[in-house]
Amino acid sequence: MLYPDLRIQGARLWQSLMDLAQIGATPKGGVCRLALTELDRQGRDLVVSWARAAGMSVSVDQIGNIFMRRPGKRPDIAPIMTGSHIDTQPTGGKFDGNYGVLAGLEVVRTLNDANIQTDAPIEVAIWTNEEGSRFVPVMMGSGVFAGAFSLEHAYAAKDTQGLSVRDELQRIGYLGEDVPGQRPIGAYFETHIEQGPVLEDADVTIGVVSGVLGIRWFDCTVTGMEAHAGPTPMDLRRDALQVATHLMQAVVAIANRHAPQGRGTVGMVQVHPNSRNVIPGQVKFSIDFRNSTDASVQAMADEFLALAEQTSQKHKMAIETQLVSSFAATAFHPDCQHAIQQAAERLGYTHMPAVSGAGHDAVYAARLAPTGMIFIPCTDGISHNEIEDATPHDIEAGANVLLHAMLKMATPS
Amino acid sequence: MLYPDLRIQGARLWQSLMDLAQIGATPKGGVCRLALTELDRQGRDLVVSWARAAGMSVSVDQIGNIFMRRPGKRPDIAPIMTGSHIDTQPTGGKFDGNYGVLAGLEVVRTLNDANIQTDAPIEVAIWTNEEGSRFVPVMMGSGVFAGAFSLEHAYAAKDTQGLSVRDELQRIGYLGEDVPGQRPIGAYFETHIEQGPVLEDADVTIGVVSGVLGIRWFDCTVTGMEAHAGPTPMDLRRDALQVATHLMQAVVAIANRHAPQGRGTVGMVQVHPNSRNVIPGQVKFSIDFRNSTDASVQAMADEFLALAEQTSQKHKMAIETQLVSSFAATAFHPDCQHAIQQAAERLGYTHMPAVSGAGHDAVYAARLAPTGMIFIPCTDGISHNEIEDATPHDIEAGANVLLHAMLKMATPS
Repeated sequence: MLYPDLRIQGARLWQSLMDLAQIGATPKGGVCRLALTELDRQGRDLVVSWARAAGMSVSVDQIGNIFMRRPGKRPDIAPIMTGSHIDTQPTGGKFDGNYGVLAGLEVVRTLNDANIQTDAPIEVAIWTNEEGSRFVPVMMGSGVFAGAFSLEHAYAAKDTQGLSVRDELQRIGYLGEDVPGQRPIGAYFETHIEQGPVLEDADVTIGVVSGVLGIRWFDCTVTGMEAHAGPTPMDLRRDALQVATHLMQAVVAIANRHAPQGRGTVGMVQVHPNSRNVIPGQVKFSIDFRNSTDASVQAMADEFLALAEQTSQKHKMAIETQLVSSFAATAFHPDCQHAIQQAAERLGYTHMPAVSGAGHDAVYAARLAPTGMIFIPCTDGISHNEIEDATPHDIEAGANVLLHAMLKMATPS
Repeated sequence: MLYPDLRIQGARLWQSLMDLAQIGATPKGGVCRLALTELDRQGRDLVVSWARAAGMSVSVDQIGNIFMRRPGKRPDIAPIMTGSHIDTQPTGGKFDGNYGVLAGLEVVRTLNDANIQTDAPIEVAIWTNEEGSRFVPVMMGSGVFAGAFSLEHAYAAKDTQGLSVRDELQRIGYLGEDVPGQRPIGAYFETHIEQGPVLEDADVTIGVVSGVLGIRWFDCTVTGMEAHAGPTPMDLRRDALQVATHLMQAVVAIANRHAPQGRGTVGMVQVHPNSRNVIPGQVKFSIDFRNSTDASVQAMADEFLALAEQTSQKHKMAIETQLVSSFAATAFHPDCQHAIQQAAERLGYTHMPAVSGAGHDAVYAARLAPTGMIFIPCTDGISHNEIEDATPHDIEAGANVLLHAMLKMATPS
């Protein structure tokens, strides 16, 4: 390990997190800083001022992504990049996204303090509108950068008041000139709170993320016969809810059969006519299947579709299952996973392999360069919530792992 | 059987049903004639004009109930009464309620044609606001008449526009002077479409109703832990919906164990936060238990409450079950059931015992006098719907049974 004694300053990183969290602070201790609002501008300005103070140059591209660069010894090789986002959910926390950006800044500050020059430049990215709360699609900045969708598509997105992404970028002064995606990346790392309970439950500090789960979203509609609950005996009913609940339980049973990474969730249920004394004539519910490979998530979907078909025949009820969305599984690069795992090991942090169940900017970065993610525990697995929390110890640990993983990649041996 | 060859005129009764259905007719063939509207007034006026043409006297009480009377030979004995309501659901049908009133009128017309004088007077009642669509409580007129709740309580009820029952009664000219309940009843019969599928399924014309099911309504709330569907592995979830679906299935299983009259329905479901990629943190659902005796419906409720308790302990989730409403079971009078059964038998109609799963004005009448109900099949068991339908054959059969059951009770031997 290069510079085996080098450590980031946990207190400085924590203070920066707390300072940034003042912008859009909510009474309950969270943050509301929606993408491309005045508060987002203030947050961007603050982080950019810190970057400049750390001697970094700053570029902004046409979708508002900010790239803060610390030069390397060899300007001819692609930078090692880290980053995340600083927009939040309407009732978001202090760490989601912000930690990934400020951990990157802390790495640069640490290299400055130690007067270390890396071969490759170091870059810290702030990606625009990761959350998608105000404008869809989510992960907008990194998505445009990776060519997942066009700049025009992103520009045209409007919030509920009819304001467009392009106009709001211009208004807050972050409509840059660089063409998105025209920037080379040697490797990409992202530190993030886990947003799940696994690390905390296992009492482990560092999650070495192997990839992001693939997703299949379905809507399932069961159609029976609406009837008055009083006069209709049990044997003459065609109760859509009773059949639907059987399928809802199957969603979870299928996920349990596809352990350890299979996940099955029914999050949304709509009963028609939803009246206390009427047997439901129709029930619509959502299905969210996830697994670590596209083949395994497809196998889960196939099991459900076969069961729906059998159930439809058995109960003589129409059951329609419609694919709503599909997201491919992402496997992170072995070199990046190795660099993270090795850094955690040598720094003496407990660590374990992890998967990300949710999307991150790193998913799009992985289309362009070797990518890895570092997870740290978050209290009770809760995020997208004002009570989102992480310990100073874990915040420091994740940034130390980032420092050494980036150092390793930035100085090819 | 007195007058064994006497029959009502099916065509005349059908025509009256169709004529009354013109008032408030909907494009889909149903009727919208909400209680105490201008259309209700027109419907009342039409039926009252028919009653007067049939030589009946007409009284109106303070809650707008209309009593149309054909004198008997002996004014000293209490009248044999029949009746129902002519208000409808917003998208109601032609038969619900209207059939019970017009079958009574047809009985009188038939007695007139045959020049028959009964010992007891014959009365036909139009009860105010049975449906409860515009004003609650339901079965308002018969409820006030039976003393189930006060006249003042009924008067104070307001529709969504703030108009009160008392003012609307006055406006349409049906705020009468008689004190409700001050009218003797010797026996009460009500003909009604079944509003369920049992008779049609069994291919039987006449249901001899033994009583009205008792009801227990509960709201059940299961509280787990809301979490992101992606990052939360199956074994660390506290999915309120998965526990709730188990209980929803138990509602039906309990009803099946309490065959033949046990009924269990989950009609309403509310999932929180009801988002596709969030594990439900809380699920609230309604439970409707019915059975033919209060003891049996209470036994069903007790089974559910015990299961909810066990389930709460097993899954370490809070499960609250709250009683929302409770309606006592009503048993109709053996003499009235016998009169109906005997009439059907001698008239050569197929018949079977039946129960009413829904409330009717007869439930309140049963508090005051021996009461019976005659059910006829309705197409596909559907009512409270514009497509509600019944065949001329069954309409005629029910009225013939009513005729002979009333004749028997009106001429004590």
